[in-house]
Amino acid sequence: MTMKFAERMESLKASEIRELLKLTERPEVISFAGGLPAPELFPVEEMKKITGLVLEESGMQVLQYSTTEGFAPLREKIAQRMEAVGVQATGEDILITSGSQQGLDFTGKIFLDKGDIVVCESPSYLGAINAFKAYLPEFVEVSTDDYGMDMEELEKVLSTRKNVKFIYVIPDFQNPTGKTWSIERRQKLIELANKYNIPVVEDNPYGELRFEGERPPAVKSFDTEGRVVFLGTFSKTFCPGLRIGWTLADKELLQKYIFVKQGSDLQTNTMAQREIDKFLELYDLDAHVEKIKAVYKRRRDIMLEGIKQYFPQGLKYTYPEGGLFTWVELPEYMDAREVLQKALELNVAFVPGGSFFPNGGKENTFRLNYSNMSEEKIQIGIERLGKVLREMLTEKTV
Amino acid sequence: MTMKFAERMESLKASEIRELLKLTERPEVISFAGGLPAPELFPVEEMKKITGLVLEESGMQVLQYSTTEGFAPLREKIAQRMEAVGVQATGEDILITSGSQQGLDFTGKIFLDKGDIVVCESPSYLGAINAFKAYLPEFVEVSTDDYGMDMEELEKVLSTRKNVKFIYVIPDFQNPTGKTWSIERRQKLIELANKYNIPVVEDNPYGELRFEGERPPAVKSFDTEGRVVFLGTFSKTFCPGLRIGWTLADKELLQKYIFVKQGSDLQTNTMAQREIDKFLELYDLDAHVEKIKAVYKRRRDIMLEGIKQYFPQGLKYTYPEGGLFTWVELPEYMDAREVLQKALELNVAFVPGGSFFPNGGKENTFRLNYSNMSEEKIQIGIERLGKVLREMLTEKTV
Repeated sequence: MTMKFAERMESLKASEIRELLKLTERPEVISFAGGLPAPELFPVEEMKKITGLVLEESGMQVLQYSTTEGFAPLREKIAQRMEAVGVQATGEDILITSGSQQGLDFTGKIFLDKGDIVVCESPSYLGAINAFKAYLPEFVEVSTDDYGMDMEELEKVLSTRKNVKFIYVIPDFQNPTGKTWSIERRQKLIELANKYNIPVVEDNPYGELRFEGERPPAVKSFDTEGRVVFLGTFSKTFCPGLRIGWTLADKELLQKYIFVKQGSDLQTNTMAQREIDKFLELYDLDAHVEKIKAVYKRRRDIMLEGIKQYFPQGLKYTYPEGGLFTWVELPEYMDAREVLQKALELNVAFVPGGSFFPNGGKENTFRLNYSNMSEEKIQIGIERLGKVLREMLTEKTV
Repeated sequence: MTMKFAERMESLKASEIRELLKLTERPEVISFAGGLPAPELFPVEEMKKITGLVLEESGMQVLQYSTTEGFAPLREKIAQRMEAVGVQATGEDILITSGSQQGLDFTGKIFLDKGDIVVCESPSYLGAINAFKAYLPEFVEVSTDDYGMDMEELEKVLSTRKNVKFIYVIPDFQNPTGKTWSIERRQKLIELANKYNIPVVEDNPYGELRFEGERPPAVKSFDTEGRVVFLGTFSKTFCPGLRIGWTLADKELLQKYIFVKQGSDLQTNTMAQREIDKFLELYDLDAHVEKIKAVYKRRRDIMLEGIKQYFPQGLKYTYPEGGLFTWVELPEYMDAREVLQKALELNVAFVPGGSFFPNGGKENTFRLNYSNMSEEKIQIGIERLGKVLREMLTEKTV
């Protein structure tokens, strides 16, 4: 039969990353494509103990429906952890979501009518772009440098464009570039948001994974007017399969997220919430994060070392102080999708950068993930990728 | 700060049921309000064994990101279980969702532009109404009798109204009425849907909980044109806290649900999917459902017996052959919200029926749930409720 769908369905297609992930499930592929944590670091033994305990102590509750807002003790513990980035909050400011991805979808649902403007970094997180697209906005991309968004360009947008509904930023180890905003830019962002009365959505899944230097205060910490929504997650610090993230916002705004959560899926898995709560009670999450950081730091170092050694001279790439990604820029005439074709022949995968630009373009970029492959595989994969790049550059030069 | 929200936010408010659930958390309240399963029937011991096993066997996988579609072996097992209601399917026809509530939200997202029409039973499930409302449709309610929707009225709607995007039905032990559609009405529904080329959404969370008589084939089983979307869940047959439901649809249409799932929350909790899969592998879910049915049947019997004994003569109420609810109609001049006020003074709660009518009205109705209270509490609660009703009727008569 032929069906008539909503207008939004015309703009939705499968995420390039998720589709790629399927292709790269073959074990022989060295994949720098996804944003997967290293599974060998998951606290499997602790999880066994914890799940046994929560079922023992409160089996009937953990398997039952629960409140839309989430498990109160977990919300309280998350609020306490937010102090590390200068945010004062209580459990009542927090809604538990199915990963922070769900917070992105809800943000679109709450703010966006067709044609409204989302201001974002250029490039920005593909999953956020896709989540927002369902609500048919227009994206205005603002250039970024090594310290965050270009604030002059941002002010130009805010002062000239109507219907800007929010500014979406990933200030810590951005996906896809791995870059981190300076404190000054964070302050300036709030200053401009206040001046033009625009909400800010701070997506922060990677901030805790800092290998060096000091963790800057969250953008939210500079918010005196309740205009910043902070999205957090345990997917990168604990494990993603449990799908536990959170949305932190001022009470009146959070109420809207709660309403939307209710209609969207009633509540997040009760047992997963209790499990993470129990882990936070019995174990030291920060110590666990230290282990993750040590492993990812070595992998980053090996990847950057390999890039230096094997990639053609003169390519630009970022130096991430934490998180999961680095970002490579090829000469403008090159297309990373073609590079991917050839790399896949050598069983190496990554994500071409074009789809991180909501308005298209910049096909000469790609994202590399270093968290999910062993040091040896990173070395081999980067060497192979370097070979492909050198050959392609030579072809062009000839 | 003042923020500008999307137009849809004007129509969204907290679900009356969920808000009530908060009020009724006091242990002294006898609550017929929610739609909660009996937690004492949850397979807690089996869950302990299963969670240990899945973590032991594949800890790294169960805690990692997984595919948007869901865990393939679970999808396959669900497809096989669909044979019980005459539906031939494979795992590829199935998307795992966060409860069937998420399937409702996705249905709205996929089909509805502002002003489009959703045709539904009158009354219909509050959670579905709220999920759809986020996409700003108009609701056209079709009257129901003891055998399902009035088919003449349905044809009148389909033949005269443009922009009908889908027909939403709960054919088995409907929420809120507890009524079940006859086989003839199911066939006629498909006939009309085919004639007017309209998709059908069959929401079926309760069908497996049949206390007597034979389970009719699903509406989906009569679908020869791929126009029926079937929404199922383990929330009532296993446990709701895990939030595992499914959407079954023809491949092309299911692909749209998968795209939408990707942007909404990437995937459903990996571990919960593996747990249910393992339960289905090691235990007999049907035998477990038999236990649930035995308990709920007794509770239904006691509730209906109590209604007969304690409620004023002449009130209409339904006789559900399964599921969780019965539905009471008061004389037209009465308002169930006033009854609730007085009942709460005696620590008895239920859900007034008005909000189950998307276009309002019928405040002289209410829904009673019998699955979540002990036999003793049902007896006491219904006796108290009868007292309130008799007093209110006497007042009016005086």
